[in-house]
Amino acid sequence: MLFAVVLFFFSGVVVDARYAANWTSLDARPLPTWYDEAKLGIFVHWGVYSVPGFGSEWFWWHWQGQQPPDPKCVSYMSKNYPPGFSYPEFAPQFHAQLFDPHQWADIFKASGAKYVVLTAKHHEGFTTWDSPFSWNWNAVNTGPHRDLVGDLADAVRNQSLHYGLYNSLYEWFHPLYLIDKKNGFKTQEFVINKLLPEMYNMVVRYKPEVIWSDGDWEAPDTYWNSTAFLAWLYNDSPVKDTVVTNDRWGAGCACKHGGYYNCKDKYTPGQLPTHKWEKCTSVDTYSWGYRRNMRLSELMDLPTIIKDLVQTVALGGNYLLNVGPTAEGTIPPVFEERLRGVGAWLQINGEAIYASKPWRDQYDNTTLPIWFTSKGSTVYAIVTVKPPKSIVQLSSPKTSSKTKVTLLGNPKPLAWSPLHPNAGLTFYCLSFQKHLDRPGL
Amino acid sequence: MLFAVVLFFFSGVVVDARYAANWTSLDARPLPTWYDEAKLGIFVHWGVYSVPGFGSEWFWWHWQGQQPPDPKCVSYMSKNYPPGFSYPEFAPQFHAQLFDPHQWADIFKASGAKYVVLTAKHHEGFTTWDSPFSWNWNAVNTGPHRDLVGDLADAVRNQSLHYGLYNSLYEWFHPLYLIDKKNGFKTQEFVINKLLPEMYNMVVRYKPEVIWSDGDWEAPDTYWNSTAFLAWLYNDSPVKDTVVTNDRWGAGCACKHGGYYNCKDKYTPGQLPTHKWEKCTSVDTYSWGYRRNMRLSELMDLPTIIKDLVQTVALGGNYLLNVGPTAEGTIPPVFEERLRGVGAWLQINGEAIYASKPWRDQYDNTTLPIWFTSKGSTVYAIVTVKPPKSIVQLSSPKTSSKTKVTLLGNPKPLAWSPLHPNAGLTFYCLSFQKHLDRPGL
Amino acid sequence: MLFAVVLFFFSGVVVDARYAANWTSLDARPLPTWYDEAKLGIFVHWGVYSVPGFGSEWFWWHWQGQQPPDPKCVSYMSKNYPPGFSYPEFAPQFHAQLFDPHQWADIFKASGAKYVVLTAKHHEGFTTWDSPFSWNWNAVNTGPHRDLVGDLADAVRNQSLHYGLYNSLYEWFHPLYLIDKKNGFKTQEFVINKLLPEMYNMVVRYKPEVIWSDGDWEAPDTYWNSTAFLAWLYNDSPVKDTVVTNDRWGAGCACKHGGYYNCKDKYTPGQLPTHKWEKCTSVDTYSWGYRRNMRLSELMDLPTIIKDLVQTVALGGNYLLNVGPTAEGTIPPVFEERLRGVGAWLQINGEAIYASKPWRDQYDNTTLPIWFTSKGSTVYAIVTVKPPKSIVQLSSPKTSSKTKVTLLGNPKPLAWSPLHPNAGLTFYCLSFQKHLDRPGL
Amino acid sequence: MLFAVVLFFFSGVVVDARYAANWTSLDARPLPTWYDEAKLGIFVHWGVYSVPGFGSEWFWWHWQGQQPPDPKCVSYMSKNYPPGFSYPEFAPQFHAQLFDPHQWADIFKASGAKYVVLTAKHHEGFTTWDSPFSWNWNAVNTGPHRDLVGDLADAVRNQSLHYGLYNSLYEWFHPLYLIDKKNGFKTQEFVINKLLPEMYNMVVRYKPEVIWSDGDWEAPDTYWNSTAFLAWLYNDSPVKDTVVTNDRWGAGCACKHGGYYNCKDKYTPGQLPTHKWEKCTSVDTYSWGYRRNMRLSELMDLPTIIKDLVQTVALGGNYLLNVGPTAEGTIPPVFEERLRGVGAWLQINGEAIYASKPWRDQYDNTTLPIWFTSKGSTVYAIVTVKPPKSIVQLSSPKTSSKTKVTLLGNPKPLAWSPLHPNAGLTFYCLSFQKHLDRPGL
Repeated sequence: MLFAVVLFFFSGVVVDARYAANWTSLDARPLPTWYDEAKLGIFVHWGVYSVPGFGSEWFWWHWQGQQPPDPKCVSYMSKNYPPGFSYPEFAPQFHAQLFDPHQWADIFKASGAKYVVLTAKHHEGFTTWDSPFSWNWNAVNTGPHRDLVGDLADAVRNQSLHYGLYNSLYEWFHPLYLIDKKNGFKTQEFVINKLLPEMYNMVVRYKPEVIWSDGDWEAPDTYWNSTAFLAWLYNDSPVKDTVVTNDRWGAGCACKHGGYYNCKDKYTPGQLPTHKWEKCTSVDTYSWGYRRNMRLSELMDLPTIIKDLVQTVALGGNYLLNVGPTAEGTIPPVFEERLRGVGAWLQINGEAIYASKPWRDQYDNTTLPIWFTSKGSTVYAIVTVKPPKSIVQLSSPKTSSKTKVTLLGNPKPLAWSPLHPNAGLTFYCLSFQKHLDRPGL
Repeated sequence: MLFAVVLFFFSGVVVDARYAANWTSLDARPLPTWYDEAKLGIFVHWGVYSVPGFGSEWFWWHWQGQQPPDPKCVSYMSKNYPPGFSYPEFAPQFHAQLFDPHQWADIFKASGAKYVVLTAKHHEGFTTWDSPFSWNWNAVNTGPHRDLVGDLADAVRNQSLHYGLYNSLYEWFHPLYLIDKKNGFKTQEFVINKLLPEMYNMVVRYKPEVIWSDGDWEAPDTYWNSTAFLAWLYNDSPVKDTVVTNDRWGAGCACKHGGYYNCKDKYTPGQLPTHKWEKCTSVDTYSWGYRRNMRLSELMDLPTIIKDLVQTVALGGNYLLNVGPTAEGTIPPVFEERLRGVGAWLQINGEAIYASKPWRDQYDNTTLPIWFTSKGSTVYAIVTVKPPKSIVQLSSPKTSSKTKVTLLGNPKPLAWSPLHPNAGLTFYCLSFQKHLDRPGL
Repeated sequence: MLFAVVLFFFSGVVVDARYAANWTSLDARPLPTWYDEAKLGIFVHWGVYSVPGFGSEWFWWHWQGQQPPDPKCVSYMSKNYPPGFSYPEFAPQFHAQLFDPHQWADIFKASGAKYVVLTAKHHEGFTTWDSPFSWNWNAVNTGPHRDLVGDLADAVRNQSLHYGLYNSLYEWFHPLYLIDKKNGFKTQEFVINKLLPEMYNMVVRYKPEVIWSDGDWEAPDTYWNSTAFLAWLYNDSPVKDTVVTNDRWGAGCACKHGGYYNCKDKYTPGQLPTHKWEKCTSVDTYSWGYRRNMRLSELMDLPTIIKDLVQTVALGGNYLLNVGPTAEGTIPPVFEERLRGVGAWLQINGEAIYASKPWRDQYDNTTLPIWFTSKGSTVYAIVTVKPPKSIVQLSSPKTSSKTKVTLLGNPKPLAWSPLHPNAGLTFYCLSFQKHLDRPGL
Repeated sequence: MLFAVVLFFFSGVVVDARYAANWTSLDARPLPTWYDEAKLGIFVHWGVYSVPGFGSEWFWWHWQGQQPPDPKCVSYMSKNYPPGFSYPEFAPQFHAQLFDPHQWADIFKASGAKYVVLTAKHHEGFTTWDSPFSWNWNAVNTGPHRDLVGDLADAVRNQSLHYGLYNSLYEWFHPLYLIDKKNGFKTQEFVINKLLPEMYNMVVRYKPEVIWSDGDWEAPDTYWNSTAFLAWLYNDSPVKDTVVTNDRWGAGCACKHGGYYNCKDKYTPGQLPTHKWEKCTSVDTYSWGYRRNMRLSELMDLPTIIKDLVQTVALGGNYLLNVGPTAEGTIPPVFEERLRGVGAWLQINGEAIYASKPWRDQYDNTTLPIWFTSKGSTVYAIVTVKPPKSIVQLSSPKTSSKTKVTLLGNPKPLAWSPLHPNAGLTFYCLSFQKHLDRPGL
């Protein structure tokens, strides 16, 4: 009977889906499908570090945390600020007066990305939302006087993009964290009184579909209570069905536990991994946060970004591309240019990227470097360098008389001939090059 | 045996001195003797409110808390600050660059006071020490970049003065407090996670001999866990033997429970109370914190202060006289003048004040207003208005041929004659007046 | 014929009153009578130096002008400001947000002063009015955004007080002045292009009745074109009939040329001078401008001020008492207290001061120090120390049976007896002392 | 005799080269040859307007000058600054802390430009050098605390580039200018006391080879004394032999008098002009000064810039391309990208640009838009759009069997065939396209 079946089904779901607070159980959770299909996300590092905008978002640590401190940071401060000026005093200058979340979301949408991840809290501890556990050290109480997390959430979702939040577990200078650290992480003052209540609050309030965890490496996951948090997140949180997380949940977790794997920053595997992964990288190769002194030569140009995206997707990864907005709330035009450039390329070539799967082979270098993706019976060969001649040879594909070769964005099939019997192919294309040109030129 | 005796003694001490966490037990604690003997203390209100210095130390509440807000505060802010400017953004301007605690202590000493009470935290929540529970909202992390509580402690004690700390239980805008308040004080998020750990920390670290509690009135002492804190304070804290506290430990406690009684601000009883009390009052009659716009007519002048002190001591009270230093760390000269003036008067007349006891009668108004204090067999008659004639009559004192009348500061006895047989006396004094003149003139 | 007489008279006036641009002519001008009768003026130093409020109004020079610079100023700046911070950058912090000229005028009136002199421009060059010759370096273009000179003029005149302006001839760092200085004052770039046009503009616009000139000493009056300016001021300016000036019009002019003589700052002559003079002095003995770090012991107290005023008037001088308002626009209460104190004393004793003339003798020290003034047949003996006994002896006055001795403020004549036949007198006064007490006590 | 001839020649030069202060004489001066050969210059707008960075470098005028004011500017100020905040108060925030003139010069050199023109003073009046006539309203006295004009001069010349200075004749709000304006420019207070001395000083001090005059339109050249200044500049200034100027020397001068002609901003003539001209234009199409809120779509992209440059040079003009640095002293990377892109294109194609002359025909549109330049017997046909086919036809050139067709950057001659007998040509080129692609891809 239908009624009984439904009950049974429901009961079965509950039994099956409840995760225990251990890695065996948590690691077994299937990744919600939207994530693998999305392929491209935008990462946004925005915080008090955007005010000095010097060196990187690690400015505070480099200036006053590490021993010895970075002489460049020390010198910049001593030259431009009064003695004794402290990092929290940057916060009132985080004006965000030009922040237009809809403008941002428009750029992110135009980039072809399917999700956006904003720093809700970086290692400095400043929350870009009014966390009750970070009073007077958040974007509503000081600086922007605005709920940055919430305002961007609305705009991003209005563009039908998924919305995620970056959250640092540790805070370099939080006094309770320093007490725990001094105690060899035998105490959990920071985790119990600050971190966990804040994370629950953040999830319930903003319903992020990505929790991009970071800052885990100084202590084991048992200190952070990570498995308990994840069990709640997967079982009982308002985003239990759609949320994805990464693998930064305690020393030793990276590349081993959690949701998808980031492994290290900007990590690219040498061959096709068996676990879903994401490469996070930044247009500014020196920093994730805005740097006032960035120079063109320090930025990834568009071809580099597209090649990196293609390689990542061919190897089964997602690509999370970072930009650092200014303290005024703008996305520097040079970043906007990169993002719109990626979007223009995806406009034509997105079929080979979105919802694709890695192919049998990921790479062919017979005549020139080519990355493969696939979808059903279609194989996509992505050429990311300008062919020196108009003849391209591929040795990997098995071919038959039914094989059809087309160029994305071009309705007419391309002429081809087999390289070997039933294997490999050669094709020639005069109009090929336009797709390699920079979009928009 | 000696060993047994010591054990017995120790055991005995524990039994006798341990206070239980209830008012019956706590109220029974004898007040440490230094306090009643001290008579005069200096109260210091110093915090972020010293930066706007407008209206009073309640500026934040008057501007953004109360409904409707004070139009003067709203207007001052809208005329002088950008829209959206928030109170925490005043903190970086709390420079305290001219703060010299030894200079302050010198003034306090010169005032004749025997103790000093500094605001460790007012209702704004900003701690003038680096509370681990008030990260980035304290004087070390921002503004002064200095441990104001500790630096003043050293200087004050170096002058052999007792040192106390004012602490507000409630914080107008603390998000955890607001949650508890919304919950009708059924929850204790604020007390457990913030208030109590901070108070323990403060006591252990600075060993204050006065805990001047305030901000208690919105919730009962059971919300604040006041009795537990006081039991710890009296039993186990490093200041258990010498600390005194007041009576602001929960709604309904004032004038009823705790250590000495403040009852209300600036309260003076109508007649001799049975419980030790303290009158707190402020040179600036409009404010406890510094006001940039204070005018002379709004300040107590020296004669008013001395009369007030005399009346308070005659009625068995201590007198806690407040000054509000500037955000730069200076005590305005007009306050310094008052304090040194009190000290000059006490230099001559302190014998009648310090360690005195209320006399049988406290007041005589036969010919002119006179307050009495006593010490052993000496009665002090304190004349605080200039006698219209050089003849003074007192009806209260019983006199005999052994009665001797002197003027403090004058070695020669005064001639006197009985008013009635064995009661009352009349004396005449040409040189009397010089002690009523302003010292230093 | 009447017609002819009038013509002749008119012609005569023109001939007599027109001053030539030389000292002989200018020095011969009679001082307008209001000035000598006024006796007491208030001097107000207010400018950008009020912002640092450190050291004195010479802060800029002490910090960056003199060689070697004052280490205290250098240290204060290097401790509290970023490297490279320049003095002009103080100007935007000269907010004057609490400036209420009517409140000031009320205090000045209450002091008993009859004129007020405000710094229209000190050596820093910043004009407290919008001089067209000091664009963006004046109080209307930056800082207060207000015509301080004009607003105070209205308020002061509304209290029926005379209004004067202080003007510094030289400007420490004006590039045109430095060029002239480098040229040994052979060139007059500064004087022609800047100084004179500005002074004419200032006089025409504000009609000051005192031009309190300063900053003259580095160059001769011929460099400053002083005599030409004064000839215009006395002949053709809108204040030609009532204006008075001092004697700082070029190196060597002080105590020699101009209107009344200041000679040096705070100068008091040893005996009765033959030329009208003025003593300028400051409540803050260390500074004319506001100092944030002033201490009580560095300020003149009221008795000192009154004695100084009395001595000055007895010796034929005017007394110009200075206060330095804050950058916020307030007069510190300790200054207000001094000014109101002087006023309270003058309220009773002003008859002996205003419009008085020096007497035959100025001083008697027979029993205690006494200064004399006179008006018609009345001689005023001003006792400025508390007599040790109630008997006062004066040896100077010639007495007769018609001599009457009274105490100002007391309607009843005092009993007296001659000291010698027809000379000297002794009087005894019990109620005498109240007039020596601090007013208001 | 040779000796005599030389003498005569020399003498003749002196006679001929002395320019009179009238347009007939001044306009007859031949333009120094370096200028026409240079073709490309970089324009730099940098001043206090870079601090608000809102709207454009006309911010002050739009906010407080024009009637009615621009509501966007008014709203931006009222939302983000306290009431009364004045434009001069932006100056202390003009920090230029990251200004590295050598880095700038490196970028300018890399752009292929041969000269650089910096704003020494824009309409706001703020001088980026320490003009003695703009005391406390210049970059040395406040803000950068640095001689921006001098520091950039050194760096630019070190790269063997010519250095010019932009100077605005009028200053929107200078009080002396406003007086003259009110007087219908019958008075010259501003010109005599401020403008001319400053310009002489600037030329003598920095020896600019371009005087880019602006802000002339409100008054005739007779008000500005332009012809006298130019006569001095051409006859007696230290740059008399090499300096070039433009045509903004008074109302009605543009396109008519002076050195080369700018006519209007961003002006391009419809056909080949008879007088040397320059097109000034800006990467940011909305502004010459930095705008914090610029968006990508508002900027010229590289192909647009190159097309514009080519058209300008084909029509005999110079191209002055503007970038607006930030108040911090950086050139935004998106501008750097454009400049380096132009340079990369010129690296290959500069032969057709530098020192070229307009050809007989400037433009051919037979098959696709083509601009011509020439040098000696060589004609350069510059194709600035991607040919739809690989066949290009030109109808203008007369051809013969000796005609040779090459592609710049490609050593091999291209095959071609005549279009008509002795006229026109058709050529086909597979490898042609790479030169049309964006350099650097």
